[in-house]
Amino acid sequence: MISIAILGHGVVGSGVAEVLAGNADGIAAKAGDALRVKRILDLRTFPELPYADLFTTDFNEILQDEDIRIVVETMGGLRPAYDFVKACLLAGKSVVTSNKELVAAKGDELLAIARENNLNFLFEASVGGGIPILRPLDQCLAANRIREIAGILNGTTNFMLTKMIREGMSFDEALALAQSLGYAERDPSADVEGHDACRKICILASLAFGKHVYPQSVYTEGITAITEADVQYAAACGGVIKLIGRAVRTADGQVTCLVAPMILPGDHPLAGVSDVFNGVMVQGDSVGDVVFIGRGAGKLPTASAVVADVIDAARHLGARKHLFWEPAVDGYVADHTLAPTRMLLRFACADSAAARTQIAAAYGDVQYITVADAPADEVAFITPCMPEQALTEKAAALAGMTLTRRLRLF
Amino acid sequence: MISIAILGHGVVGSGVAEVLAGNADGIAAKAGDALRVKRILDLRTFPELPYADLFTTDFNEILQDEDIRIVVETMGGLRPAYDFVKACLLAGKSVVTSNKELVAAKGDELLAIARENNLNFLFEASVGGGIPILRPLDQCLAANRIREIAGILNGTTNFMLTKMIREGMSFDEALALAQSLGYAERDPSADVEGHDACRKICILASLAFGKHVYPQSVYTEGITAITEADVQYAAACGGVIKLIGRAVRTADGQVTCLVAPMILPGDHPLAGVSDVFNGVMVQGDSVGDVVFIGRGAGKLPTASAVVADVIDAARHLGARKHLFWEPAVDGYVADHTLAPTRMLLRFACADSAAARTQIAAAYGDVQYITVADAPADEVAFITPCMPEQALTEKAAALAGMTLTRRLRLF
Repeated sequence: MISIAILGHGVVGSGVAEVLAGNADGIAAKAGDALRVKRILDLRTFPELPYADLFTTDFNEILQDEDIRIVVETMGGLRPAYDFVKACLLAGKSVVTSNKELVAAKGDELLAIARENNLNFLFEASVGGGIPILRPLDQCLAANRIREIAGILNGTTNFMLTKMIREGMSFDEALALAQSLGYAERDPSADVEGHDACRKICILASLAFGKHVYPQSVYTEGITAITEADVQYAAACGGVIKLIGRAVRTADGQVTCLVAPMILPGDHPLAGVSDVFNGVMVQGDSVGDVVFIGRGAGKLPTASAVVADVIDAARHLGARKHLFWEPAVDGYVADHTLAPTRMLLRFACADSAAARTQIAAAYGDVQYITVADAPADEVAFITPCMPEQALTEKAAALAGMTLTRRLRLF
Repeated sequence: MISIAILGHGVVGSGVAEVLAGNADGIAAKAGDALRVKRILDLRTFPELPYADLFTTDFNEILQDEDIRIVVETMGGLRPAYDFVKACLLAGKSVVTSNKELVAAKGDELLAIARENNLNFLFEASVGGGIPILRPLDQCLAANRIREIAGILNGTTNFMLTKMIREGMSFDEALALAQSLGYAERDPSADVEGHDACRKICILASLAFGKHVYPQSVYTEGITAITEADVQYAAACGGVIKLIGRAVRTADGQVTCLVAPMILPGDHPLAGVSDVFNGVMVQGDSVGDVVFIGRGAGKLPTASAVVADVIDAARHLGARKHLFWEPAVDGYVADHTLAPTRMLLRFACADSAAARTQIAAAYGDVQYITVADAPADEVAFITPCMPEQALTEKAAALAGMTLTRRLRLF
């Protein structure tokens, strides 16, 4: 019998308790021992629950209980989750968390403490909810050198974009629907501004490339500026708009990492990942492209990933898993404006013939894109692949033309 | 330093040697120790290779070398691979294999021997080539009760069907192209008759549901009968034809398992899995649908999966992984004709009005499907969902109508 504590009885925490109770026999068989939830930390009480007597509001009751070997952290946010997790690791308890903010901000430090104490710090559920992605990345792809990771990492924005693409909704309509269905929070900024996706690509990049990538060093652009016109233009390009987190290893050992809406070609494996689904593409030197798709959020999918980590931690008490990355180093994350990209650029211009002459001089042979409802003075085209900085410098130098919109092509 | 032997220096075996040599430092870091290929068994010699001196034609040199802790089997086929693998396990060596025929036929016995001897018998590469699927199934989904697994498990036939769908090729043209590109063997029967896919769904079903499913107990239908008309009808149904292996847990603890071409709805996550790619969908009670996509074959993808298992075996010398299933039991695999399904049925009939009257009486309200080039006397429709046995009995009882074709809908 292995005793567990759960910090936080919200959506994920209560789901963990539910999955542990509902599949107890199967889980015991997999874990090699029965798992018992001994304590749950929450400021609220839940007198109606069959396990109401497990609740405590005092973290020290968990910290000082030597019987508790594994602590599940599902509180979310950086404080006090960080202090609690660190204290648990220092007290010799393995920790499983679904908290992406914590892992993206403090992963390197917590992994180092876990290593020093021969403990496991596991966080499969922090990226992609129930989709197994971190463990396959770390273990199954151990024989590969990873070149690139790209993914649709936020289900809320993917749901909204799907509604905008398929049903012609505006951003505001799609957001209102996502909120009414419980997919988006009342303050949706973490989702729609791209911060949530940013934390997840940071975790993926840190694991895949071996050094911590902090969210604040990653260019992050959300979907708040996406309009029906963008959706139309993407379709005219033969693609769809998705909010993509992308990390690429550069030739000189740096990493380019960004989050932005991008136009994906219609036949890309991630282009069909719709609604609240997430998808992650990993490109390895031996395996080629591998894609993982599933529900990226939700109570039971996320809880099932947490419980899988708990089982793993239970099977590896005193035997640390390999999962690890080094602290961040200065200059490791490359300036994303120096990375080559293609963009769809739209300009307002009085004289479209003169505009085309200038565009040809600046960019060479480009592909013009037209949509039915475009303003009469609009010119839009896909640039050749060149550093973003060069693309935008050239755009600024075009006389009598105003850049009204730019969208990256994947 | 951990010593390894490789049995068979064909496509996969030579790829394993290549990946181990090419990523030696990264692999040593992951494995916690350097890995050295000490011996390679092959009847041929390869004097041009830098490691030409490692070759032997005598299996006993490997079996009796106590220094060799891990044996990689990439010979393929049942004999002598089975005897060699069994002997290695009995001699205390962990075994990693990519041999699906071996695992599908003898997995339960070899897993039991591995368990008795506290060794690992790992075979990630036997299903889906480089796509991590068995380990996520076993570990990451440990908290789920799996309901269903379905997949495009054979890259050769998926390539052929893609050519038939997108370019209107006939079966023979697609096969000739696959052979000229090296995707299909000169004797393509294992691929096109569905036997390869059958072995893989057997391995997946055995692992997911805990009891061995033998290939001979699985209804297996290949793609040799697929015509351009089938492709057209699938498109008219809004779908695409894929060769699907599918295993479903029934309410009374049995398993329904079959391999057959099926019409997938166009928006199904597996419908976009094209060319030589494989895709596997797993449905768990907590996680919902999870999909894994990647190259299902090829030298380096498969070799990378083998090497990942070798790393895992190296990290778990003397500490067995959980991976296990029980021997087969009689009556475990349910009669697939009793499982409910929908089918596209095509009939030749002289009087189509009379046919429709009979069809309505037999099947109730059905969806008629028409294609441009159909024979004048053809009637085609999608049946309601009912046991296959009932579907075909009703079809046989229709007077003046000859069943010319039936295709399952996924």
